[in-house]
Amino acid sequence: MNQKAVSVLGLGDMGTALADALLAAGHRVTVWNRTAARAEPLVARGASRAETAADAIVASQLVVICLLDYDSVGQVLVPHTDVLAGRTLVNLTNGTPSQAREMAAWATEHGADYLDGGIMAVPPMIATPEAFVLYSGPSGTFETWRPVLDAFGESHHLGADPGLAALHDIALLNSMYGMFGGVLHAYALVRSAGGSAAEFAPMARRYVETMGAYAEAMAARIDAGDYADDVTSNLAMQTTAYANFLTAAEESGISTELITPIYSLLQRRVADGHGHEDTASLVELLATPRAG
Amino acid sequence: MNQKAVSVLGLGDMGTALADALLAAGHRVTVWNRTAARAEPLVARGASRAETAADAIVASQLVVICLLDYDSVGQVLVPHTDVLAGRTLVNLTNGTPSQAREMAAWATEHGADYLDGGIMAVPPMIATPEAFVLYSGPSGTFETWRPVLDAFGESHHLGADPGLAALHDIALLNSMYGMFGGVLHAYALVRSAGGSAAEFAPMARRYVETMGAYAEAMAARIDAGDYADDVTSNLAMQTTAYANFLTAAEESGISTELITPIYSLLQRRVADGHGHEDTASLVELLATPRAG
Repeated sequence: MNQKAVSVLGLGDMGTALADALLAAGHRVTVWNRTAARAEPLVARGASRAETAADAIVASQLVVICLLDYDSVGQVLVPHTDVLAGRTLVNLTNGTPSQAREMAAWATEHGADYLDGGIMAVPPMIATPEAFVLYSGPSGTFETWRPVLDAFGESHHLGADPGLAALHDIALLNSMYGMFGGVLHAYALVRSAGGSAAEFAPMARRYVETMGAYAEAMAARIDAGDYADDVTSNLAMQTTAYANFLTAAEESGISTELITPIYSLLQRRVADGHGHEDTASLVELLATPRAG
Repeated sequence: MNQKAVSVLGLGDMGTALADALLAAGHRVTVWNRTAARAEPLVARGASRAETAADAIVASQLVVICLLDYDSVGQVLVPHTDVLAGRTLVNLTNGTPSQAREMAAWATEHGADYLDGGIMAVPPMIATPEAFVLYSGPSGTFETWRPVLDAFGESHHLGADPGLAALHDIALLNSMYGMFGGVLHAYALVRSAGGSAAEFAPMARRYVETMGAYAEAMAARIDAGDYADDVTSNLAMQTTAYANFLTAAEESGISTELITPIYSLLQRRVADGHGHEDTASLVELLATPRAG
């Protein structure tokens, strides 16, 4: 593909990995960081260092932003509204959907095209097959720059609403933290009986992967709002079994704080007359009531 | 392998699947269920129906038990202590580690060998490569019967303590429920923005599987008690990002009840001066203090 000029604002571990991916893809990369020393290794690998954020923005039509948070993005961009017109900002900074929507409106107001993104990878995964990056904003802007953005990992465009990438980013991280919490509780339990977490861990990983198919299958039932029990363990049966989990944790001296919230959902859903339904039906207690 | 006589007590969906797996492996299978009609399909497929639990116990040296709970196991076995001597009981009923240990002591007292087990599968998975079954109790007893037990799925012997199978069973289910909770929260979040859970689900499944490697890698650090931050996102950084998850849920009208417990762990661990450590260090707040 064509070599492009791309600027990267923010050279933490992730910004550095992004700049390296762009260099590896053959682009002309200009980098800027508040603490200038962070740019030196990248300059040694072929990047140009901009003295100021304004210089970095002016250097390229495509400006990739990867800072600590949206406050930092505002601090860096607001003094330079005069150089934004006609450029494309791709903001990969972590934030909320509403922050992304506000930033998109602000950038558009100043004549810039704007994509918001969420990177589903840690820095060492950038430019490997494991990395994927979520984008939201105008599809024309995404398609124009997709060949460049693909250097970071698989690019997924989620829609025109600029908040969608942050929303899906957070949703994926929530999925991950839920799994982490379950596995950490399990490690504590196994160790309480003198076992080794490391010996147990491959079995836990395998089981979570196998059951990932069940979690995926819940999605269609949730979309349809149809929780008839077509599986072998309904919520009433699960609630009975789940009580053993609390007993086992208490008898092992392990905190129940990570496992009680699901128990509460199970008990409430059964009390509400949904004991014959399947696990997917718990989502009804998380979301606002369905219309109609 | 040799054809054996095996009895199965309890013909719910799981007990029926176990009996079918034994029939498929060529064994002489005797079945018993409190409600006798549940035995009829198995009799049509070649099993013998015992009129009483005592008849079923007497019919085979190996007796597989799969009932609703340990109270049911007690009700079925206690009247027949006179026929237990010299037999092997394999109890696959769900329960707690302490229930398994008590049942093992009771069975031994009456001259029976005893294995406790946990089935890591739903009934349709029995006898497929996805199923695995955990056992604990004397290793000699396990090795003697392993060729028969392998009909159910991969057999894993965890040690002589009869409570270990129940403990690991519960630990694996806790891992699964943690993942389910995370994914259900994510589905609620995606749907709040008008998205489809089914479109999002494959991405969530992939991300959870990728991050399963990170969860597995935490285990060795937990065993070593060494949480030096050798990764790219320490607890202090994670706590900052996690605040966005709560904001996003609140702005989307989604309950935060499934995601606040991890936030609480993060905040407490950072407040205790461990902000530079990695995610694995959260386990210290779940377990009783380390000795020494």
